[in-house]
Amino acid sequence: MNTLLAKEKIKEFLNEDIGTGDLSAELIFGGARGKGAFIAKEDGIVCGTFVIDAVYSLLGGDHEVRLLKDEGSAVKKGERIAEAEGDIKTLLSGERLILNLMQLMSGIATSAHALVTALDDLSIKITDTRKTHPGLRLFEKYAVTAGGCFNHRMGLYDGVMLKDNHIAFGGGISRTVESVRKKLGHTVKIEVETETREQVAEAVKAGADIIMFDNRTPDEIRELVKLVPKHIITEASGGISLENIHTFKGCGVDIISTGSVTNSAKPLDISFLSEEAIKA
Amino acid sequence: MNTLLAKEKIKEFLNEDIGTGDLSAELIFGGARGKGAFIAKEDGIVCGTFVIDAVYSLLGGDHEVRLLKDEGSAVKKGERIAEAEGDIKTLLSGERLILNLMQLMSGIATSAHALVTALDDLSIKITDTRKTHPGLRLFEKYAVTAGGCFNHRMGLYDGVMLKDNHIAFGGGISRTVESVRKKLGHTVKIEVETETREQVAEAVKAGADIIMFDNRTPDEIRELVKLVPKHIITEASGGISLENIHTFKGCGVDIISTGSVTNSAKPLDISFLSEEAIKA
Amino acid sequence: MNTLLAKEKIKEFLNEDIGTGDLSAELIFGGARGKGAFIAKEDGIVCGTFVIDAVYSLLGGDHEVRLLKDEGSAVKKGERIAEAEGDIKTLLSGERLILNLMQLMSGIATSAHALVTALDDLSIKITDTRKTHPGLRLFEKYAVTAGGCFNHRMGLYDGVMLKDNHIAFGGGISRTVESVRKKLGHTVKIEVETETREQVAEAVKAGADIIMFDNRTPDEIRELVKLVPKHIITEASGGISLENIHTFKGCGVDIISTGSVTNSAKPLDISFLSEEAIKA
Amino acid sequence: MNTLLAKEKIKEFLNEDIGTGDLSAELIFGGARGKGAFIAKEDGIVCGTFVIDAVYSLLGGDHEVRLLKDEGSAVKKGERIAEAEGDIKTLLSGERLILNLMQLMSGIATSAHALVTALDDLSIKITDTRKTHPGLRLFEKYAVTAGGCFNHRMGLYDGVMLKDNHIAFGGGISRTVESVRKKLGHTVKIEVETETREQVAEAVKAGADIIMFDNRTPDEIRELVKLVPKHIITEASGGISLENIHTFKGCGVDIISTGSVTNSAKPLDISFLSEEAIKA
Amino acid sequence: MNTLLAKEKIKEFLNEDIGTGDLSAELIFGGARGKGAFIAKEDGIVCGTFVIDAVYSLLGGDHEVRLLKDEGSAVKKGERIAEAEGDIKTLLSGERLILNLMQLMSGIATSAHALVTALDDLSIKITDTRKTHPGLRLFEKYAVTAGGCFNHRMGLYDGVMLKDNHIAFGGGISRTVESVRKKLGHTVKIEVETETREQVAEAVKAGADIIMFDNRTPDEIRELVKLVPKHIITEASGGISLENIHTFKGCGVDIISTGSVTNSAKPLDISFLSEEAIKA
Amino acid sequence: MNTLLAKEKIKEFLNEDIGTGDLSAELIFGGARGKGAFIAKEDGIVCGTFVIDAVYSLLGGDHEVRLLKDEGSAVKKGERIAEAEGDIKTLLSGERLILNLMQLMSGIATSAHALVTALDDLSIKITDTRKTHPGLRLFEKYAVTAGGCFNHRMGLYDGVMLKDNHIAFGGGISRTVESVRKKLGHTVKIEVETETREQVAEAVKAGADIIMFDNRTPDEIRELVKLVPKHIITEASGGISLENIHTFKGCGVDIISTGSVTNSAKPLDISFLSEEAIKA
Repeated sequence: MNTLLAKEKIKEFLNEDIGTGDLSAELIFGGARGKGAFIAKEDGIVCGTFVIDAVYSLLGGDHEVRLLKDEGSAVKKGERIAEAEGDIKTLLSGERLILNLMQLMSGIATSAHALVTALDDLSIKITDTRKTHPGLRLFEKYAVTAGGCFNHRMGLYDGVMLKDNHIAFGGGISRTVESVRKKLGHTVKIEVETETREQVAEAVKAGADIIMFDNRTPDEIRELVKLVPKHIITEASGGISLENIHTFKGCGVDIISTGSVTNSAKPLDISFLSEEAIKA
Repeated sequence: MNTLLAKEKIKEFLNEDIGTGDLSAELIFGGARGKGAFIAKEDGIVCGTFVIDAVYSLLGGDHEVRLLKDEGSAVKKGERIAEAEGDIKTLLSGERLILNLMQLMSGIATSAHALVTALDDLSIKITDTRKTHPGLRLFEKYAVTAGGCFNHRMGLYDGVMLKDNHIAFGGGISRTVESVRKKLGHTVKIEVETETREQVAEAVKAGADIIMFDNRTPDEIRELVKLVPKHIITEASGGISLENIHTFKGCGVDIISTGSVTNSAKPLDISFLSEEAIKA
Repeated sequence: MNTLLAKEKIKEFLNEDIGTGDLSAELIFGGARGKGAFIAKEDGIVCGTFVIDAVYSLLGGDHEVRLLKDEGSAVKKGERIAEAEGDIKTLLSGERLILNLMQLMSGIATSAHALVTALDDLSIKITDTRKTHPGLRLFEKYAVTAGGCFNHRMGLYDGVMLKDNHIAFGGGISRTVESVRKKLGHTVKIEVETETREQVAEAVKAGADIIMFDNRTPDEIRELVKLVPKHIITEASGGISLENIHTFKGCGVDIISTGSVTNSAKPLDISFLSEEAIKA
Repeated sequence: MNTLLAKEKIKEFLNEDIGTGDLSAELIFGGARGKGAFIAKEDGIVCGTFVIDAVYSLLGGDHEVRLLKDEGSAVKKGERIAEAEGDIKTLLSGERLILNLMQLMSGIATSAHALVTALDDLSIKITDTRKTHPGLRLFEKYAVTAGGCFNHRMGLYDGVMLKDNHIAFGGGISRTVESVRKKLGHTVKIEVETETREQVAEAVKAGADIIMFDNRTPDEIRELVKLVPKHIITEASGGISLENIHTFKGCGVDIISTGSVTNSAKPLDISFLSEEAIKA
Repeated sequence: MNTLLAKEKIKEFLNEDIGTGDLSAELIFGGARGKGAFIAKEDGIVCGTFVIDAVYSLLGGDHEVRLLKDEGSAVKKGERIAEAEGDIKTLLSGERLILNLMQLMSGIATSAHALVTALDDLSIKITDTRKTHPGLRLFEKYAVTAGGCFNHRMGLYDGVMLKDNHIAFGGGISRTVESVRKKLGHTVKIEVETETREQVAEAVKAGADIIMFDNRTPDEIRELVKLVPKHIITEASGGISLENIHTFKGCGVDIISTGSVTNSAKPLDISFLSEEAIKA
Repeated sequence: MNTLLAKEKIKEFLNEDIGTGDLSAELIFGGARGKGAFIAKEDGIVCGTFVIDAVYSLLGGDHEVRLLKDEGSAVKKGERIAEAEGDIKTLLSGERLILNLMQLMSGIATSAHALVTALDDLSIKITDTRKTHPGLRLFEKYAVTAGGCFNHRMGLYDGVMLKDNHIAFGGGISRTVESVRKKLGHTVKIEVETETREQVAEAVKAGADIIMFDNRTPDEIRELVKLVPKHIITEASGGISLENIHTFKGCGVDIISTGSVTNSAKPLDISFLSEEAIKA
């Protein structure tokens, strides 16, 4: 992840929440210092702990953060993820953003990990899609990898994907692939979405680098992969989720891509509690 | 909603997805024009239709959008939300962002509407919290109102809320409220989070404008509201979701705030299909 | 005040003044270091001393700032507000912006303090309005509080204020208040501007949280406040300035809001002098 | 004035005021249209009328603006400066920024015009300084010229000015000028601040393009200008204001620069009134 | 090319040149209109004509642009590339940026075209590198394709390239490739830089998608390609320029990448002349 | 140079190259540290060494940079310009931008130095023009001075230049100069472009501060300078390059301005090599 870009975004997010000023913390606490802890309130995979220090650094003041869990590691309900000490204003003004971002990222990492576990087939890589929250793709795609899945292309600029609409508007697979190939650089792969045996065959002939089987059952996929030479990557996509991913075990495809890893992830519940509140 | 700010953000989101260019659409379609439709793939409440025109306008070119559903209205699976005609490049380069944003907002509006229906008590207003996706609060809080709920404060700058940590660090409710009141303007309300009868009584005495009952059962709330004079607003919060909100019916509180309206909303499934693909 | 936002703005202001480079200081001084002092050239209230360090930090280099006056404290003509030591280029390239901002803020704090003194009635809080310099509201509203006054709403987003034009366009007070209330969250107050006894009565009935008496004399206000129940805040506004604020003493209103606190404030005269120049 | 930059800044200023949304106008007016007028409430010089259209354009919607006064022309109390028609939301959400900016600029233009009139000596050009409001220099320097004065350098980047601190830190006038000249391009003028006959002589010898007499009386200036050859521009500065500028008439200097033209300008009082409110 | 991003950058570039205002054109021309033409002063390939309209649109006012040459087409010395009519201020304030950008892009397109012609071997694609001017990569990579060459990866984010330093720091080709592959998505290709037969063999074995021969002669390349299976792309790079590219004809490599296409391109000389100046 | 602005731009440039992340370095190197050196691969003048530290600081992590060559000093092929030690990810992710920027700036400094040497006439100052790469003017104009030349105006805002198009559209030299002078501040110089003896005479009479001889031969210039009084600066421009600048030696003009100093500068070849790669 580009941490420079991440920091710019965290700055923008802080301003969204703090606006002209934190009317609560600023008016209560002078320069008093305090301690607190980030505590998991349910089991999951931790992701985004770097956000704590990034937020506090932007809010200024002297602070110390002790990370107790590694990125991508498991956390149990009740365990401490990190401890922090610093200016109380900083701790409280930054609390909500840290939680919103860390809960989102840990939720996605947890979701990714659950998919890998449910599939139980290491010969198939699971990837995300572009179904991410606008403005948060950098963080969400990073969380996907923290949880043990892989990234599909980051956007429209780093991979060609010819989907149903491209093919319908473009006059078929062969013609569409050909248009692209004439101008495309050699570092970019061409992926083609297919639904039928005929389309798979056409995509193979057109020289696709990746062939995606859209909304096909595991059984259909078992047949379709036979049509594709080894050096072409195969990908299953469409409606695959935590509920049904186990049915794809052993279907022979190289990749499963699923929007659900980001799209259906529940935020992992995490709290920030002052040591005073913990004692109370 | 500040539409000027919304457009700035949509521009930023487009650049996140398109980056240096849409390698697929740009290389296939010259200036060819096409038509397509945004179609609901499940029942729900529509929100964010203005995004379609905003995205196409930023991508340039001549286009026409016909909105077939009003903001906040119900849509059935299979119904068209909007129809669009324009440069194919524009239609396809903007597709993913429009869907990501409209699905998010419609999902939240649907979630808000479901909460209102489940509670079935118009004497209680349901509001959101600050548990939103960083950078998207403007869109998410708008969607909450489109679905029939209300907005809690937008951020740390437009309302004082003294939560457990503020009170623990600040030395109790009375002292904390007093610190704030000394410097706070008359247009801002002070809300105090409470857990016990003693805290409620202390908050009343301290002159809170809003008293929040944190993680209390409906029965407890029935008792607690009796301690609060009419001119002070009461609010229930903590762990309230679509599953249990009906139990709060008739509990006598003024407001229920729940992070779940934004936090647990599932994106509403919407597709963009070219007329060619629809026919096929 | 959101110091993160303040620093962003100070960066923008520095670039306004320095542009492509400081043709004077850059071409004269290598890495030579020097000392200087910020000295009041008239009596007043000090505000904005944090700007000194913020500016020097952005301009880089090793520097030391010793603040000799607290925010909001009185300074006498000839007294030192702060002393600085560092790279001469930094001291001189940042001088004008520091002075422009600190003079503006100290001028407003001085103006606020003068209003409080002139009114001589602590039962009435004095507030600012939205009559601030575009882009500088954050700094100006902060300076208002440093001088002992209070902040009215920060903008159009954190308070409802129904003014003459809203009421005229909206079809009267009752109807306008009702439109707003239907969709407004419970954390936001509704203020209504009134001119006549009838309007005050209508505003009370409509359930306004704050009733403003626009351009009323102290004697008129004495009568109008009688129409308003205790739990509704009353506010006098319109044409109130340092010259006439004493006439409002004891008029019974809760709040006086005046654009003059920001709008008519004279910058407090402050100089930066090198120790060499001071000796000379 | 760079109108592209001006529009960017107006966008930023609108966001400062509107934030997440105009809670008043947005909740009251659907798409209803209305009319209103900008009316001078005191005599002065009009400046900044372009802001009206710029603001409305950013806020969107169909609108029409009729400018009734030219930039830099005189307006009498009660006269209309412009009339506007459009979406009521747009008219009211933009009102405060338009007034804040137009009052500021008209106030400065009025102040500039007053200085020219008071001096009553067209052989002397009056200029501003860098004593402007941070972030608003573009607008304020433009207003200075609309009122009949001239611009001194825009910032540290488009003119060299060696002031007391530069000379003190730099080891005297000759040495300081020499340092600069070695690296300075031929399009930039060098101005030297002087206080004594000796300094003026030294500045002449050093080859200054402009010699400034700092805090000198008109009589002193009459003598000092005799020391300066015709091709070098002379400038009086320091403590010159509307009150005393007439005493400089005929003193023989080329330029008078005064921070007071921007610094001490009172905003020109202007109102926006809906046609409904005007009738009422 | 992402035109939304291109326009943002053009706005930034205009502000770099115009700053606070165009002191020449603004002070001379009221609203007078004029005509002019963009004329090639040497033979070459035209690129970047869209900049003309983009610049004029940002500067405002009514204008008309007639493009007489297509992107990527040849132009002869003296031929008109485009004609423009509009506000003279707009024509002249935008002139330099249009020329700087169009000359740069046309120069690169001309350079790309010259390389293709000199190589005279369509079985080899010529690509650029990341040796572009910071901030201008979008425009420069676009110009490369307009001239008939292809794009290598756009940046560090859309392709893996293991160069000498990566391999040296990373402990050899095999180990470095393996580290990357463990976490890399399936849409990204891995390219390995090699210098010796041994390294080529190691890269093949490690499963590189692209193998680059760094600084090898055409004869060496003829031998090296024999070591590489067909499905792996081969690329020659290092010191290849217009002077020597013809020696690579028929060497059997798939790709030649050369920084010189952007790095050594001379701006194509283009002038803007008013019709008045043309007649004179 | 405004280093604050420079750093902002370097941040933007880094994001252009790194985008969502450096897929190579991030996936290979944990927190391992390494050493490397920036080495000149040809003779030239060094410029832009501050970029190394600026880039590493933005990329984070602990690093150390030892500069071995001063800005503007000569470097020989094979010599080390700087040595760096730090996180390998930082060293490699920042490598390309540092080289692209330092090669550009050193190339321009080398070009500037070559022009000074070739002219061999210190009575004539050589300056740049506005023919710079959009967005890079700050860096390029700085490099011009590092190489011993001078800066012409930075943009349209810090100097008036009446060129052929201005004069043609504006109705001749006298009229155009007069229009400008009426509103121009005293700190800005007026330069007039001339081609004939008549135009030179007209420019002198109109009171130009600088007279430019456009596309004149050295012999023509020898005659034209005689028409111009000493206090007016003369400037030769148009088609002057490293090849022909020596013919202007002794022609009597004050200034030679040439776009070629930036426009035709070849990047100075510089490499970054890990100590491991150097040993290998």
